[in-house]
Amino acid sequence: MKTRFSVHIKRYLVYRWLFCGVCFQCVFPKDPPNPRLTLDQGDKRLSYDRNCSHTVLFQESNHLFIGGINHVLQVDVDSGQKILKNFTLSSEICAEKSCENVVTVIEQFQNCTFVCGTNGENPRCWKLYPGENYTLTMEGTGISPHTCTQNSLSLVADGDLYAAAPLYNDGTLLQFRRKAGNRISLWMHDQWLSEPTFISSFLAKRNDDTMNEKIYVLFREKNSDTSPEADPWISRVARVCKVDEGGPKQFLQNIWSSFLKARLVCGIPNESLYFNRLQDVFVLHAENWTDSRVYALFSSSWNFTAVCIYSLEALDGVFERSSFKDYNKEIPTPRPGTCVQNSKSLPIPTLQIIKDYPEMNDWIHPIHKDTPFFTSTDSYTKIAVDRVNASDGHVHNVLLLATDKGTILKVLEDDYKAFIISETHLTSGSAPIQSMKLDSERKKLFVGYPDQMAVFDLQRCQDYNASCGDCVLARDPYCAWTEHGCMSQTKGIQNIANGSTSECSRSLGRIKRDLRSPPLVSLRIQHTVPTDVPFYLSCPVESHHATYRWEHKEKNSTCQKTQSECLFLIPAMTKDDYGTYKCMSHERDYTKVVKEYKLIPEPVLSTAVQRRAQEWISIFVTVVFYICCL
Amino acid sequence: MKTRFSVHIKRYLVYRWLFCGVCFQCVFPKDPPNPRLTLDQGDKRLSYDRNCSHTVLFQESNHLFIGGINHVLQVDVDSGQKILKNFTLSSEICAEKSCENVVTVIEQFQNCTFVCGTNGENPRCWKLYPGENYTLTMEGTGISPHTCTQNSLSLVADGDLYAAAPLYNDGTLLQFRRKAGNRISLWMHDQWLSEPTFISSFLAKRNDDTMNEKIYVLFREKNSDTSPEADPWISRVARVCKVDEGGPKQFLQNIWSSFLKARLVCGIPNESLYFNRLQDVFVLHAENWTDSRVYALFSSSWNFTAVCIYSLEALDGVFERSSFKDYNKEIPTPRPGTCVQNSKSLPIPTLQIIKDYPEMNDWIHPIHKDTPFFTSTDSYTKIAVDRVNASDGHVHNVLLLATDKGTILKVLEDDYKAFIISETHLTSGSAPIQSMKLDSERKKLFVGYPDQMAVFDLQRCQDYNASCGDCVLARDPYCAWTEHGCMSQTKGIQNIANGSTSECSRSLGRIKRDLRSPPLVSLRIQHTVPTDVPFYLSCPVESHHATYRWEHKEKNSTCQKTQSECLFLIPAMTKDDYGTYKCMSHERDYTKVVKEYKLIPEPVLSTAVQRRAQEWISIFVTVVFYICCL
Repeated sequence: MKTRFSVHIKRYLVYRWLFCGVCFQCVFPKDPPNPRLTLDQGDKRLSYDRNCSHTVLFQESNHLFIGGINHVLQVDVDSGQKILKNFTLSSEICAEKSCENVVTVIEQFQNCTFVCGTNGENPRCWKLYPGENYTLTMEGTGISPHTCTQNSLSLVADGDLYAAAPLYNDGTLLQFRRKAGNRISLWMHDQWLSEPTFISSFLAKRNDDTMNEKIYVLFREKNSDTSPEADPWISRVARVCKVDEGGPKQFLQNIWSSFLKARLVCGIPNESLYFNRLQDVFVLHAENWTDSRVYALFSSSWNFTAVCIYSLEALDGVFERSSFKDYNKEIPTPRPGTCVQNSKSLPIPTLQIIKDYPEMNDWIHPIHKDTPFFTSTDSYTKIAVDRVNASDGHVHNVLLLATDKGTILKVLEDDYKAFIISETHLTSGSAPIQSMKLDSERKKLFVGYPDQMAVFDLQRCQDYNASCGDCVLARDPYCAWTEHGCMSQTKGIQNIANGSTSECSRSLGRIKRDLRSPPLVSLRIQHTVPTDVPFYLSCPVESHHATYRWEHKEKNSTCQKTQSECLFLIPAMTKDDYGTYKCMSHERDYTKVVKEYKLIPEPVLSTAVQRRAQEWISIFVTVVFYICCL
Repeated sequence: MKTRFSVHIKRYLVYRWLFCGVCFQCVFPKDPPNPRLTLDQGDKRLSYDRNCSHTVLFQESNHLFIGGINHVLQVDVDSGQKILKNFTLSSEICAEKSCENVVTVIEQFQNCTFVCGTNGENPRCWKLYPGENYTLTMEGTGISPHTCTQNSLSLVADGDLYAAAPLYNDGTLLQFRRKAGNRISLWMHDQWLSEPTFISSFLAKRNDDTMNEKIYVLFREKNSDTSPEADPWISRVARVCKVDEGGPKQFLQNIWSSFLKARLVCGIPNESLYFNRLQDVFVLHAENWTDSRVYALFSSSWNFTAVCIYSLEALDGVFERSSFKDYNKEIPTPRPGTCVQNSKSLPIPTLQIIKDYPEMNDWIHPIHKDTPFFTSTDSYTKIAVDRVNASDGHVHNVLLLATDKGTILKVLEDDYKAFIISETHLTSGSAPIQSMKLDSERKKLFVGYPDQMAVFDLQRCQDYNASCGDCVLARDPYCAWTEHGCMSQTKGIQNIANGSTSECSRSLGRIKRDLRSPPLVSLRIQHTVPTDVPFYLSCPVESHHATYRWEHKEKNSTCQKTQSECLFLIPAMTKDDYGTYKCMSHERDYTKVVKEYKLIPEPVLSTAVQRRAQEWISIFVTVVFYICCL
């Protein structure tokens, strides 16, 4: 059966190849990989007033702050639902259009919880104190946007507050600036960016070289290449020095003196196929900054999604080594972009390049240059990545991708291949996910929707608890098979590398509880079915990576598939249709009986016997009656 | 119900818009339009030896010639299956690799059926005569490719044979040439094209100005723009004069002296989203050449498909009016590309531009510049377009698109919107369609697969014969509702413009046979079902544009959908589940009962009555017995 199928597929591919001449069709698989499991986890939710565009989530030890409209909720992290405090921050000054104070910034700044909001199109910032008190601390223009649909970004690093937000009501003068803190305020030269949308920023710590620490800003902007072939949008990384104090009085005063930018590329260069529209970024920081990884989520002009992974060292290397775009003369010393103790003393030639040619010639390519780590025909909104110590002794990275339909994809970074462990529904609706906050310590992901926050439990091993095979096939680094079932602990049977279940049978002696063969008794169902009527058998589709079939009298039948069930439809019961049916699933090296039915005919024979007996009785009675009466 | 749904959709779109900031997601619908009907028409097929890459189809009045391996079949057009003659053309000279003679060219040339083939990598051409005779007529290099996987093209126009095929075994020196006929042989300058794949060529007749008639060649080639953003492939139209005789002895002798080329664009320019890879072309010739339309099928680097429609007049206008790429000086007289009686007397400055700057600066845009006529996430291989005189008095264009899965899509060109009437399976397999030949007079489409030819009947009105509503909803210009049912004739009820079925009820008096209300009796099925057992009802999904629901005791339920059925699953029959079920379909202004079931319980009550009666009888008998006997 399988051989015939693969011959068919091969023939098809040969046709394709022959037909197309060039291998156009090979770039994207027509059927992208499915999530292995579709799960539901709708138990932990916290509802709040509908928020127009973003729900800000901020975590400080065991408190989670949620920024809504006119208030900030302080929630207990462990429960994910218990509201500890509710700070009411109504807008004090009202613009004509809107009186709402949409909270857009929550940071830990100057030993306080620091909050900014749109405040009726007059952005303001407050400090929150114990006892639901707060004080107005500063004007918020340039930190919070004026309305919630405007783009903004904030970052607190080494005692300074950095932010990107438009200065004007109409959304113009949107820039990345140092706004408050220990160091002086700095902003950007107007010509450096064109219609930017800021996505993320972070500080890369260098424990032994703090002077050289850089802040990276990731954004998309209008492409300066206006040729008809070029995508109108392009993604970028910009870099500034943490210790930057701007240029001297006569040149670039209060302007970043170390600003550089480069193109962030994600795509299939051989096909000139690029995902140019950065959507979200997650940085997996390492002890040594050169080992850090930047995970970036992109969409393309034709609405596909890709994830590319970048080495922070290689990313930084482009700024250190590339030539400057459109600048052909000798590069002055110090090289533009070098961090110095006193940037005000930088020589003018160095600053002149920063001002006029801040773009790198080289592009920033992902670790694997040829192709993205993950591509999908669906749309995604957010990304987070967790490092997991698995029972196989290795550390595995698990990507958490938020879809625009409100579900979370859990993806194993398996070498350079993506294995989609599951897709989980956290709410009943299909609102897109607006924000995510990963608590790697508690193994929880806080997921912000327009009107509610849900907690995604990263180690829900009970989802694969049916047998050792189920637990191992899941390839979920958070879980392993133990004598108590599939558990979130580091010792047990697991095979993240390839999901092979052979260890399950070898370890039967060692591990007491053996659920390898599923408890058939509870799955075996008996039905008495009359002939001629339609009848159906159903079997839940647990794994989308498994193949399902029905076994009946040594014949195999394929499923009639609905969204979550494998059906066997019998239009009218005949004699041959009675007997035992087994719904078998097969995945990798593991075959199991998912459900078993026994269909038996109505006891037709016995009623016939009864009737015959009745007839005999009535004949007997009649005979007796005649004998007696005559 | 509907309102709630649309509110939900609206909310979702608002989320999307808010979330994305820029309207990235609006370019491609996530759910592209479905074909309304999925049909099967596997009756008329003719099998032959498997052919490696293309099956050449050629029609001459009521004979269809099919080029295979080592033979040409002459088939009766009306039956589509009856082989009239079989010309055996085995290869005479054998190369080391292959002895096959794959027929690649069939044309009507010099009053004969003219055939060329690979002939064991030594291309040859033959003339076919009555009685299955043939003679070798010429060497075929440059007319037929050496192997069937190589690209080639042929055209007979005004007594001349034009062809594109590589001159060498390895596929190099692939050009478009005039090879034989009344006029002298001509070829191209080596520098004009780069790695071309020729797709189609045609002559545009000008009845009142034959001197100015042009031959157009459509192909894709390597993009000369090698910037990383540019697609490596690009589509083009080239144009030469029919009367071209090449340049004078000293310059461009035997080379096209009127060759020009321009980029053929299909895409969404605002998003810099182009379908650059031409796959097939169909020209809908009109009486006046300026009214002719060129239908072109493209694929994109990410494997989507698009159809763009071009006005031949506008296409030609680019060659007449555009400046020449990279040429900035004054354009000499006559303008390069002008057709003249004696091209050998053309001035050198004009010929110099033809040689060095044959590319137009302007691009050829489709009639609707903003967006393709049709886009799809599937892959298509061939296109044909038929003009249909419909019962509404208008002429409608119907596109026939061949998919790489072997099905045919029938698409109505509804103003500038595509309405997909149906997708038809012609074979049981999924081999891609390699060639199509439209017989517009007989309303048949001959469809060539690797190992068989199928005939697609364009006017299968019996597919919509159930009722006037079904016939009109189909929006098939070949069909109309008459007193004899849905028929392929021009008088009857039809509404191609919008598919509204209101005319059906208004015309009840005029049209005798009324099938508007489906014959319910034959659709009503009664089942006696015991309690507690699983039970299902099924209803065929006829139209993918309709919504289906189950009506039971004034409650509506949605379907459990499989590929072609709408199911209603009852896990275990209860008292409430008995009664009448109606499967209702709703589309546009038309609602109908597709199927009706009546579920009745087993006659439990009557057996109780019987038993009671039997008890009474036995008591009665016993009493009689006692009375009599005692």
